[in-house]
Order: sequence, then structure tokens, then C-alpha cells
Amino acid sequence: MKHHDDLFESMSIPLLQARYRACSLTPAQLVEAIAARTSGDDPHHAWIRPLTRDEMMRYADALEGREGVDRDTLPLYGIPFAIKDNIDLAGVPTTAACPAYAYRPRQSAAVVERLIAAGAIPIGKTNLDQFATGLSGQRSPHGACRNALDPRYASGGSSSGSAVTVALGLAAFSLGTDTAGSGRVPAAFHGLLGLKPTKGVLSTLGVVPACKSLDCVSIFARSAGDAQRVFDVARGVAQGDPYAREWRPVQQPLESAPRESQPSLRGVRFGVPRASQLEFFGDTSYAKAFDAALTRLRSAGAELIEIDFEPFLATARLLYEGPWVAERLAAIREFADAQPDALHPVIREIIGGAARWSAADAFAAFDRLAILRMQAGEVWKTIDAIVTPTSATTATVDELEADPIRVNSRFGYYTNFVNLLDLSALAVPAGVCAGGRHAGLPFGITFVGRAHQDAALLDLARAWLGEAARDQTPAHAARSSATSATELCLGESHDSD
Amino acid sequence: MKHHDDLFESMSIPLLQARYRACSLTPAQLVEAIAARTSGDDPHHAWIRPLTRDEMMRYADALEGREGVDRDTLPLYGIPFAIKDNIDLAGVPTTAACPAYAYRPRQSAAVVERLIAAGAIPIGKTNLDQFATGLSGQRSPHGACRNALDPRYASGGSSSGSAVTVALGLAAFSLGTDTAGSGRVPAAFHGLLGLKPTKGVLSTLGVVPACKSLDCVSIFARSAGDAQRVFDVARGVAQGDPYAREWRPVQQPLESAPRESQPSLRGVRFGVPRASQLEFFGDTSYAKAFDAALTRLRSAGAELIEIDFEPFLATARLLYEGPWVAERLAAIREFADAQPDALHPVIREIIGGAARWSAADAFAAFDRLAILRMQAGEVWKTIDAIVTPTSATTATVDELEADPIRVNSRFGYYTNFVNLLDLSALAVPAGVCAGGRHAGLPFGITFVGRAHQDAALLDLARAWLGEAARDQTPAHAARSSATSATELCLGESHDSD
Repeated sequence: MKHHDDLFESMSIPLLQARYRACSLTPAQLVEAIAARTSGDDPHHAWIRPLTRDEMMRYADALEGREGVDRDTLPLYGIPFAIKDNIDLAGVPTTAACPAYAYRPRQSAAVVERLIAAGAIPIGKTNLDQFATGLSGQRSPHGACRNALDPRYASGGSSSGSAVTVALGLAAFSLGTDTAGSGRVPAAFHGLLGLKPTKGVLSTLGVVPACKSLDCVSIFARSAGDAQRVFDVARGVAQGDPYAREWRPVQQPLESAPRESQPSLRGVRFGVPRASQLEFFGDTSYAKAFDAALTRLRSAGAELIEIDFEPFLATARLLYEGPWVAERLAAIREFADAQPDALHPVIREIIGGAARWSAADAFAAFDRLAILRMQAGEVWKTIDAIVTPTSATTATVDELEADPIRVNSRFGYYTNFVNLLDLSALAVPAGVCAGGRHAGLPFGITFVGRAHQDAALLDLARAWLGEAARDQTPAHAARSSATSATELCLGESHDSD
Repeated sequence: MKHHDDLFESMSIPLLQARYRACSLTPAQLVEAIAARTSGDDPHHAWIRPLTRDEMMRYADALEGREGVDRDTLPLYGIPFAIKDNIDLAGVPTTAACPAYAYRPRQSAAVVERLIAAGAIPIGKTNLDQFATGLSGQRSPHGACRNALDPRYASGGSSSGSAVTVALGLAAFSLGTDTAGSGRVPAAFHGLLGLKPTKGVLSTLGVVPACKSLDCVSIFARSAGDAQRVFDVARGVAQGDPYAREWRPVQQPLESAPRESQPSLRGVRFGVPRASQLEFFGDTSYAKAFDAALTRLRSAGAELIEIDFEPFLATARLLYEGPWVAERLAAIREFADAQPDALHPVIREIIGGAARWSAADAFAAFDRLAILRMQAGEVWKTIDAIVTPTSATTATVDELEADPIRVNSRFGYYTNFVNLLDLSALAVPAGVCAGGRHAGLPFGITFVGRAHQDAALLDLARAWLGEAARDQTPAHAARSSATSATELCLGESHDSD
């Protein structure tokens, strides 16, 4: 299978689709290649449970044997993806990085089902901060999840392994969850995109809850196009999901770019926090990298508008200094009461703190949030999106082990407010730190939009990353082609090339 | 002023408008007539603070002296209204029926401001269950509020005095608040309409909170037309109101009746709880009256469809047996902590119970509510509105005094779920009890709709009550008339007729 090793250098949906169409790759071959890599050592502690070759092959076989559909009609035909281990995959234990909590779901999470139905192939369950509580990736009994680009550094969390596996090229995309930034911080630490969609638009049915009212399923990808492709397939109101919301794309200038054209940043109005409201915790690498990103935005014709970031910061503080931690407790109370020692010590400390909050405190916080939401909402009168650093700084595994709560909290400075304010957010790569302590490590910025502005943020990212115009959807391409590509490859065996 | 006494027999907005237009009445004359009635005894304990003649006259004078507007352009020109004493009226103390809590607002509540700007004249602040906590009207240091039709009976609450003053004909309409049924139960007990609009559509800015996330300002009126007129003026997003929502009327069959036509109940699909889910607490008067109402609906061509009411009932239980009482505590915690003895004993007992709820309990209840909301929402696939009794039974003042919490809770059986499920509701009169203990007392039913279905419910009520087609708005009439009615009356003094 050696001759498929180049796949891992630049795995992407269009690349795989092209190879499938050209008959230079089959899903079974892909599975063999991936299994060869994931069955060995896992020095990054990215996996809790990679699928076995045989488990993956069942999905590949189902694809090739499926009647009436082929690589052209399935938008994710043969695309490998990794799944954070707080999201159900039928037949494989879900652990949320707490072995004592494990259960074996008979059904996949609604969002996983949609992806598989579209042709995607699950390749394993990834490591996370236990119960998705953390932004570091270091709170797991399976070992600190290490950065794929520099293993001295933290992967970020809580969707740690999902970012690492994509960064390593093992998966074309992966699923994370994002309550307070868990789908964005690891993206920033790996130079990936992390889409935290509008709350409720990707179903959380079959996801272990952190804060039920805030939890989102998130998407890691290497391009905006790939994130868009996955988002288009993954979203949909699932029967029986009390938190489901229909996606109602916000129509506004940002979305006016036609599907075929190259979007531009010209004239886009970005809100930027006042200089005094920016925080890097002394990290000059990150401060300079953010400056450079703003300069690039300005050069691309974007308008940068200073906004009062205080309502956003106050909301962020409310999340972690307020009663929402009790929502985490509520979600696992029975288990935590029965087996307190089964919890990771840091998680036990955090969730244990929830007991001090009364219901009256919770209601007072909701009222405070209603006011902050109103205040924060003012910005949308003058801007199209907000741009911030994704994380305020980064840290090594050792630094996090020495001070696990305080250092972790720095990663959430720019992420914690997003779900409480019902916003959409997209973490995008913004080059590498040019100097300072973290020189050479990736830096990321986040575009934040209103609810249902997801597609608009993806367009911004395409423009920001200089991605080519969106290709037509495979389904569309199939309809307009006289002969199906599948037919052209008929008779070729798995190992034909 | 004796010759205006007939006003109080059938006070309504069109009646007053007709008299103003015919120059047979002026706002000042109206004020004199009302002051003569409200300055004397108050055997029903309807008032906490009626305005003095002089205070009312200032509003009347302002109307008559206002430039550029006249009785034809102001939709509520010279219409007297009463205000529940948890809603601010500039310059008059707001007490929420707790004298120690009193404060003197400099500004009126947003909704009061809108009404006054439209020409309405406030006539006083009405009695209520303290802090709007109750459905009986008996929890006030100003005395048990007694039913306007039979003073042995309770007025219902918490918007007690606001219903009584309209029932007595002193006001053409009044403002209440409705968190759990406070704007509907007193309507039922007085043969009035009680509109509990979609949450957030009438601003709660300047209203003493009960449960901030649920509180609604409500409207008592004697006809659907009057309720509609007030609703049209009162709604609007107030600057600085964190709970404000824009009204987005639900377009659906119910609303298709053109403004000028007589709406009909023919073909309207009403959801009715299963017989086993109906509860009257042994009150055969009410059970029979509800039966009669259903028969009338059927005769009018409506379709009655049995629905599973359990998700609604479970939601209702959640409100009063769950942590929302802590939201009441959160709203007045500082005051309640500082002056516990200032609270009415029943209120102290209820709000004191809030301390036992933790934040985790609250979050668990929200999750339960999310599920119930999803389940309850299923009904809208097959029905246009729900019809229920407004209250399950009624009670005398003595009965309530003997068992204040349990008897009170019976009144909320059909009302408690509405705001938690984000529904609109309209209590409408449904004749009088034909037999049994409560023979001769009014009975009421409630139409319940989805959020933003308020106008549709008002149309149902017009049809139900056989009200004539909606008249054109005064503004429209003014625009289409060559000569202003005001001009025709010029020169007439307050006492001209």
C-alpha cells in the first residue's frame, strides 16, 4: 500500500474524489492505507479507539456494493473522517475519555449517520479532555494529547485527537464538539479550520452532553471548501432532538458571492476589539501574529472597525466563572455521584465546584446574559463579522501540567462567549508566528458571525485563504455528465493501480 | 357629571370614540366622571392607588392641548385604562403590593408610554397578588381583592384589580402581567378577555419582574376588538429591553380573514385535551360549562381534535414544582434578604422554598423543558389552536383564605405551561355556569396558539363572540375624511353637553 502514502501529505475531499473518479484509488485501498498507519503507535495520544482494518472495511465494502449510488452521487464517497469520542458511532464504545462511563451505542449519532449515508468512512474515536471539559487536550486518562506539529506543545482541546488526526493527514475531516471553544482552539494550534456552526444546526443527538443548552458538533478541515462540503451534508433537523434548529442562512452582503466565483474581502467590515481589550497574556508571538493578520485583512480591502468587546468578554467570564458549570454537573450527575473517583482529578475539581451555585444564581446569570446579549448585539449594526485571535496564547504540555486550570483558561479568552451569545464562528489558519517564543508554530484567527451566518463565514475563509471558487457539487456534476465515472472504472479491482 | 354615568355600563373604545367624535364627551368630562367613582370607597380592594382627579386631568389636558394630533389620529384618544401596580407609571409609586418595596419611577413603563402617547388616560394602579405571585388576588396587604360580580368570590390574580376595574366599567381596558396565568384567570372570573401576548412582544421594561424570562404584560378588555386595538398600540421593541422580541405574526389559515369581514370558526381545528386529562377538581359547574362551550364551537363549524395534553401538563407542573420559583427569588433577592418580614406570609413561604433548588436542578429542568417543548410542539401539525377551560374551578375568598396555596394552584392547571412553551393565549368569556355550586358565575375558555399567533387568536375570539367586523383604524378614517371631527367640535367647552 506504500504507493498511497502521498495521500497523507495533502488529504482533502477533492483530491480523494479526483482519485476515485480517475480509478486510481478505491475506498478499500484507502482503508488499507489508513489502517496501516493507525494500527501502530500513537505517540500523540490522538486516539482512544481507532477502528480496525476490518471495521473500516465494512464501510468501504458497503459503499462499493451499494446499489443505485456511486462515487458521483455521494458527496462524501470514500472520505475518511475521525470522530471525537463523545459522539456515538454504532457498535463502538463511547467513553468521553472516561472509561468507567463507557457505553456501546447501537445507533450512530444523527450527524455521524448523515455523514456515513453520504459516503464518508469513519476511521476511529479520538482523544479529548474528559467530558469535553477543557481547552488543552491534557485532561485524559489516555494521556496528554500532543500537538501534531510539535509534540512538546499541547494539542488544544477538548476536541484534541480530532484535530491531530486531520493535521496528521489520516482523515480528510473530523468531528469535534464545541461548547466553549473546543472546536476552535485545537484548529488554531494545528493550522486547521474549525467550524463551530450555529447552535442546533448540527444535531447533538447521540453526543455526550457537556452543557446541553450550548453544545455544538464542530468540524475540523484543511480547507474552507471541505468544511463547507461536510457542513452541507451534516446539518439537518434530527427527529427527537430537542435542541435541533433549522438552518436559516442569513442573507447579507457576505453571502452575495455567487457559488462559482472567487469571494473577496474587499469592503467586508470586520469588528476588531479595542487594543486595550486584546489579551495575549504576555505572548508577543501571538500579539505580533494577530497584528500581521489584521494588516493582511486590510491589504485585502477589508475594513477594520474598532468595537467595544467588553460585552463579549463579560459573557466569556460568565461562562466559566458563573453557574453554567452546573449544567455540566446536571448532565452527568448520576454517574459523578456514583463513581466520583472515575473522574479525572481536574474534571472532578471543576465539576465539584458546581455545587456552590443555587438555582437563583443561575437565573440571575441568565438575566445578566440577556442584557449582555442585547449589548453585544449592537455591533451587528455596523459590522459584518468579528475577527479575533482564536486563542490568546499557546502552551507546552509541561506548562499545562504545572498549572492546568489557569493556563487552560487563557485559551478561551476569545472563544467562551460564542455559544452563550448564539453566534457562529470559524477558526481559520493565519500563518505561523514569525518570532518570539512560539516562532514557527501556527497562529489562528476566528471569524465570528451571527447565528445562521455559517456559510458567510466560510466564504470569508475562502477569500482569506485564497481558495479557488467552490466546485460544483458532485451530485450536480453527475447529473450533467453523460457517462458516470463509475461506469468507466468497472471491472477494476481494489488493487488495480 | 351624572349624565355620563351610562358610560360605565358598557365602556368600550368604539363607544368612547363615537362620543368624542359626536362632541358629546370630552376627556376632561370623562376624567371627572371616573374621579367621582374612584375617589370613594373601594369595597373590592381593586385599587392600590387610584389617580386623583388632578393627576388624571393632566393627561386629559395634555390631549386636548396637543398640537398636530386630534381624536382621529390618536388610536386611544381619551381612553381610560388601569395599570397593575407592578408596572411603572411616571410619578406614582410602584409597590408590587409590597409597601416596603415601593419606589417612585420617573419614567413610565415602555408599554404605558406607548399607550399614553396614543391618547390613553391612566386612571390608577391596581391591586395584585404581591410580586405577581399567585392566581387568586388574595395575597395583598391591601386586602383580598374581591370579585366584581360577586364579592364573596375571589377576583383571581395576580392581576386582580386590573380585571376588577374593567369589569366595573371604570376603565375601557387595563394592563396586567402574566407569568403563569395572571392575565387570564382574573379574566375568566369576570367574563372578560385576557390577552397574554407572545413573550417579549409587549415590553417588560419598567415592570417589576416575577420570572424575568417568562413575564408578559397582558391586556384585559371587554371585546376582542378592544384587545386588538390596545395590542396594536402597545407592542413594539423598546430600546434597552433585553427580553424584547419583534412581533412576527404567524401567517396561517386563521389569519386569512380580511380585516373588514366577519371571521368564522368554520373549519378551524381546535385541539382539546383528552377527557382523562381534563381536570375540574370536582367542580361540576365548570365541567358542564366547558362541555357547553365545546358544543357551541362544534355548532359553529369548528373541528374538535383530541390531543395528548400530557406534555403541556408536565410543563405546568415543572413551573410550580420546579426551580422557576428561584427566578422569582433572584428578581427580589436583595430586598427579600434585607426585609424578609416585609413579605406577605404566603409569598415568603413560596419564595423561601426557592433556596432548596441548586443550579444543577435548574439546568436539569431546562433540559426537561426542551424535551417537553419538542413533544408539545407536535400538536401544531394537526391543529390551529388549543382550547381549554381558563381555570379549572373558582373559589370564594373564604375558601382561599383557609387553604391559600392548594386552592390557588387549581386555577393554574390550564395556564401554567403557556409561557414556558413560548405560546400565545387569549382568555375569552364563555357564558355563565348553568348549574351547580357556581351557577350564574362567569365561565371562561382560553385559546392557545403558537408564538406570534396573537392576532389569529383575536380573530377566533371575534368569531366566538360574534363581534362585528373590525372597524377601520381611526388614523385611516381620519385620512379618508375631508374634514376633521375635531374641527367640527371646536369651541366647545368641557361641559358643553
